Amino acid sequence: MNLEFLRELIVPASTKIAMIVLDGLGGLPLTPDGKTELETARTPNLDALAARSALGLTVPLGPGITVESGPGHLALFGYDPLRYRIGRGVLEALGIEFDLQPNDVAARGNFCTMNDAGIVTDRRAGRIPTEASKDLARLLTMRIDDVEIFVEVVKEHRLAIVLRGAGLGAAVSGSDPLKNGAPPQPVRALAADSDKTARVVNQFIERARQLLADKSPANMLLVRGLDRYPNFPAFPKVFGLRAAAIAIAPTYRGIARLVGMHILPVNGSTFADEFATLEQHWNDFDFFYLHIKNTDLAGEDGDFARKVRVIEEVDALLPRLCALEPDVVIVGGDHSTPAVLRAHSWHPVPVLLYSPTVRADGIAEFGERACARGSLGVLPAQDLMPLALAHAQRIEKFSA
Amino acid sequence: MNLEFLRELIVPASTKIAMIVLDGLGGLPLTPDGKTELETARTPNLDALAARSALGLTVPLGPGITVESGPGHLALFGYDPLRYRIGRGVLEALGIEFDLQPNDVAARGNFCTMNDAGIVTDRRAGRIPTEASKDLARLLTMRIDDVEIFVEVVKEHRLAIVLRGAGLGAAVSGSDPLKNGAPPQPVRALAADSDKTARVVNQFIERARQLLADKSPANMLLVRGLDRYPNFPAFPKVFGLRAAAIAIAPTYRGIARLVGMHILPVNGSTFADEFATLEQHWNDFDFFYLHIKNTDLAGEDGDFARKVRVIEEVDALLPRLCALEPDVVIVGGDHSTPAVLRAHSWHPVPVLLYSPTVRADGIAEFGERACARGSLGVLPAQDLMPLALAHAQRIEKFSA
Repeated sequence: MNLEFLRELIVPASTKIAMIVLDGLGGLPLTPDGKTELETARTPNLDALAARSALGLTVPLGPGITVESGPGHLALFGYDPLRYRIGRGVLEALGIEFDLQPNDVAARGNFCTMNDAGIVTDRRAGRIPTEASKDLARLLTMRIDDVEIFVEVVKEHRLAIVLRGAGLGAAVSGSDPLKNGAPPQPVRALAADSDKTARVVNQFIERARQLLADKSPANMLLVRGLDRYPNFPAFPKVFGLRAAAIAIAPTYRGIARLVGMHILPVNGSTFADEFATLEQHWNDFDFFYLHIKNTDLAGEDGDFARKVRVIEEVDALLPRLCALEPDVVIVGGDHSTPAVLRAHSWHPVPVLLYSPTVRADGIAEFGERACARGSLGVLPAQDLMPLALAHAQRIEKFSA
Repeated sequence: MNLEFLRELIVPASTKIAMIVLDGLGGLPLTPDGKTELETARTPNLDALAARSALGLTVPLGPGITVESGPGHLALFGYDPLRYRIGRGVLEALGIEFDLQPNDVAARGNFCTMNDAGIVTDRRAGRIPTEASKDLARLLTMRIDDVEIFVEVVKEHRLAIVLRGAGLGAAVSGSDPLKNGAPPQPVRALAADSDKTARVVNQFIERARQLLADKSPANMLLVRGLDRYPNFPAFPKVFGLRAAAIAIAPTYRGIARLVGMHILPVNGSTFADEFATLEQHWNDFDFFYLHIKNTDLAGEDGDFARKVRVIEEVDALLPRLCALEPDVVIVGGDHSTPAVLRAHSWHPVPVLLYSPTVRADGIAEFGERACARGSLGVLPAQDLMPLALAHAQRIEKFSA
């Protein structure tokens, strides 16, 4: 759905929408005739809500396409992730809550290992420990001409590198060859306004090479995904919603901030703390995004049982949301992360949409196979927001 | 489906397609675990046909979008309602069977109440009775320069206002502030070819203000949705079908005429009379659109039981259609109108597609939840025409 078209049809209302995102919710069975993580979990509250909901499976971007959390969340928020792109560098900067300015250019960096012939032998420098990485990063904060360069460690070999200065375009290629056994590439400007950026980044890389030459296991760095903080249509304006985000992990607060949501402080770091935040601020907003990270972490660790437990913990908290009598509840995920794959995957993600005005499917189970029988069908994740708004009586009739 | 693309693949055949449209067919249960209107209705004939059909749920325009009958019907007829738009004024003129000429400009009008300060206090003048409205309208038929102005009452405060004269563009804004408590807006030309239209409409409004000044409850009128009779590709040409429309309510005859269908006269005003018309003309056309209005009326009145009865009456007539041995039967709706909401809604609409060549789902029930399990899935209403044509052996193989 085109956001400009939708925006014309938005009408005010006093209804409330809650979107609970279990990161990497979708899963796979461990054995061919087994159950998925969600199907295995004992979820009496989700099952009861499912019985009064419409069910379906969301596709974040397109058939067969696995997404990162950035595009996965943009789709859940109603934005076409192919039209609204967030550079990898920006996502990394958001993830560490770096205070990115509108004219900054951010890059994703990797500490890596290079041999004497200038060939990258390990793009991740053996996943160098975070503390060692921080020691190296401290050496690299510098200024080139009028450009300040910040080198911040995200985790292990992963860096957010931010350039701050005048006249920095963001259209430059990366230096990362994206495979071992090849040399780093010179950074090139892809548009006339980015010549300075390319020159400064190449100088920075050369100085980094000199400064790291005698270090190990990392003796070089690679950059890619250079981009600027994007300027997306603001979620509260597009959808006419006072919108609040409740998330522990910085990346998700960053994505929510990027679309203009208000970021609520969470007092603590448990799921229960997140639900307490929801309760505290219930009267102040129309839309709540509540993010649960640990489903994804368990999936990436290949820990099927832990992912099951995380889902069960969230299920136990669900009555606290229902007690607030929301007009619309969405429970879904930004992508699948099956423990058996230890990675994000392309599999469609189970979703339920509850509202007093929903045409309930009467399927008293929240799981992949149950959702596949639901009346929402297999739908683009982007379609959830228009559906949520409709059930919240916030879209007027289209005549011509 | 792009109509230009489809048109290239159309081949002649002697098959017959019948599309039965129950206006506002889709519904909702009265209680969370109850049944919808269609699920409640005893429909042995529809259920038997469903068993030999493919079932699904149609989306008229997009997820969460509620439509008026105009775009809802265009989608059923295979036209993208976002591309093929019918101005509100044209729809109102069609609804009273006004003989709109290609160069006429039609507006939707409202009789309203305005206070001494020139503020609209009631955009509908208390839904002034139709007869009183007609008395006022008679005062307003006039000529300004070479432009004839027709003011016709649709119902209560609702008017169709038609301008007929030379050089009238249709790109003008309305005067209706669209909310009470604001003054009428001056009408503005939105393109150079519409300067004359804006000037004439503003003069007309000023004269109307003078003529109505001492009347009550309406002492003013508002205009909006000015447009010309659109020039859509003709349904018979696009689809290669001699197409006939059977409808009692003028709006639907108007929409069918607008896409170039032949409008059959109905002798009487019952559903049985519509089916009799179908029988009489069965040999003369390839495609029949038969419209049932009362499902929507009952829904808008919030009369669940009456909507159930209307569906049952149509079910009882279905054998008369089946006796004609149509090659394709579609039974569906242009949108949902759940009695519990007393209004059109965004909920997908149950549909069945029967043909001897259909891959039947074997679900012997025609209802929302049954259709959600059908093999057509949740599909754009626009997709029905290509499917109907295919099952009628009227689309040739695509090679390149």
